[in-house]
Amino acid sequence: MPSLSISVDVVIFSLRADDLKVLLIRRGRPPFEGLWAIPGGFLDSEESLEAGALRELEEETGVTNVYLEQLYTFGAPHRDPRGRVITVAYVALVPAAVQARAGDDTAEAEWHSIHHLPELAFDHAEIVQYALQRLRYKLEYTSVGFELLPNEFTLTELQTAYETVLDEKLDKRNFRRRILEADILTESKRYREGDVSGRPARLYRYKKNAVTQVKARRLFP
Amino acid sequence: MPSLSISVDVVIFSLRADDLKVLLIRRGRPPFEGLWAIPGGFLDSEESLEAGALRELEEETGVTNVYLEQLYTFGAPHRDPRGRVITVAYVALVPAAVQARAGDDTAEAEWHSIHHLPELAFDHAEIVQYALQRLRYKLEYTSVGFELLPNEFTLTELQTAYETVLDEKLDKRNFRRRILEADILTESKRYREGDVSGRPARLYRYKKNAVTQVKARRLFP
Repeated sequence: MPSLSISVDVVIFSLRADDLKVLLIRRGRPPFEGLWAIPGGFLDSEESLEAGALRELEEETGVTNVYLEQLYTFGAPHRDPRGRVITVAYVALVPAAVQARAGDDTAEAEWHSIHHLPELAFDHAEIVQYALQRLRYKLEYTSVGFELLPNEFTLTELQTAYETVLDEKLDKRNFRRRILEADILTESKRYREGDVSGRPARLYRYKKNAVTQVKARRLFP
Repeated sequence: MPSLSISVDVVIFSLRADDLKVLLIRRGRPPFEGLWAIPGGFLDSEESLEAGALRELEEETGVTNVYLEQLYTFGAPHRDPRGRVITVAYVALVPAAVQARAGDDTAEAEWHSIHHLPELAFDHAEIVQYALQRLRYKLEYTSVGFELLPNEFTLTELQTAYETVLDEKLDKRNFRRRILEADILTESKRYREGDVSGRPARLYRYKKNAVTQVKARRLFP
């Protein structure tokens, strides 16, 4: 164990059963053995930070092929009982179809509601809260929402996704007007069959260039 | 020299002579001896990342008492010829009144125009560009501009500050309307004397709560 180490940790969000969930692993060895934690581990000497985060995510949860964004670096002197460990945290969003499984060092890998998190190892509770703040901010200012949704969705499903992440009810007419004005959606030719009472609902998809195109309204010019 | 080290580096911006400048130090020892670099150095074992950044900034440039924001962590495997060094970069803004001087390990400390940067050591050119992007984004979406200005300023001086950072001309009427609508300024009782042709110009200051209060318009309520 060197006197100073770098780890990489990943907060991975998903919308499941109309709830915002975060993927946690149960630690299979000390420190904090038996406690839940976000996936992560020590950086290898020749890999980039992002490659390390992707590797740890795959090893511990089987999740691959996700888009990671660097979140923040946490380096309080005594955040790890083993010695000085500075961790570079990443955040990722995956659609509900992505499956997770426990890896070699992990007893379990499971999706947990952001509203009912268990006690977390290290400073991971703080890291998850910071990631949640970033996710909410990005949902309001960018079109990052598409990463949480299947390819096609109704406007009601999109509104539910926003409401679930932001944890607040949104006005239906305002929501529809603003999301259509933002010009990030394109109509699909298909419809979702309505329930007994309803009409079929139009399906939409995000435009291919939505991520780079959409920005919040600039204050200037 | 351990096999892995953490450094902290600071990109510090200021508006001087109607130009956006960044504070650089000339390195007094290898590697890259004689080249310019942003201030920074290795983290001490018992200090937080931010404390390390503030200490290095003071040691190398004499600048103290600045507000730092964590920018990004750069960790490409061969970014430092001495071995694996991961650097946590910070960004700071200071008003023109702040003076810098060379410290112990540094031959010189000088403000350089963002438009005419010399060759920089390590990956510091990339770090400076990343910081510039962040500064421009924040200027558009938040009221961070006050950190670059003296306590009181005219609307023309504020517009010049925005134009200098964004590197584009802004329409005067639009700028005034938007900045006043944003409700982040308060009128001072004082005026700046006009030149021979002009009327005295009203002085403004940022509201005390401007930083927390102002946000770009949210896409959703």
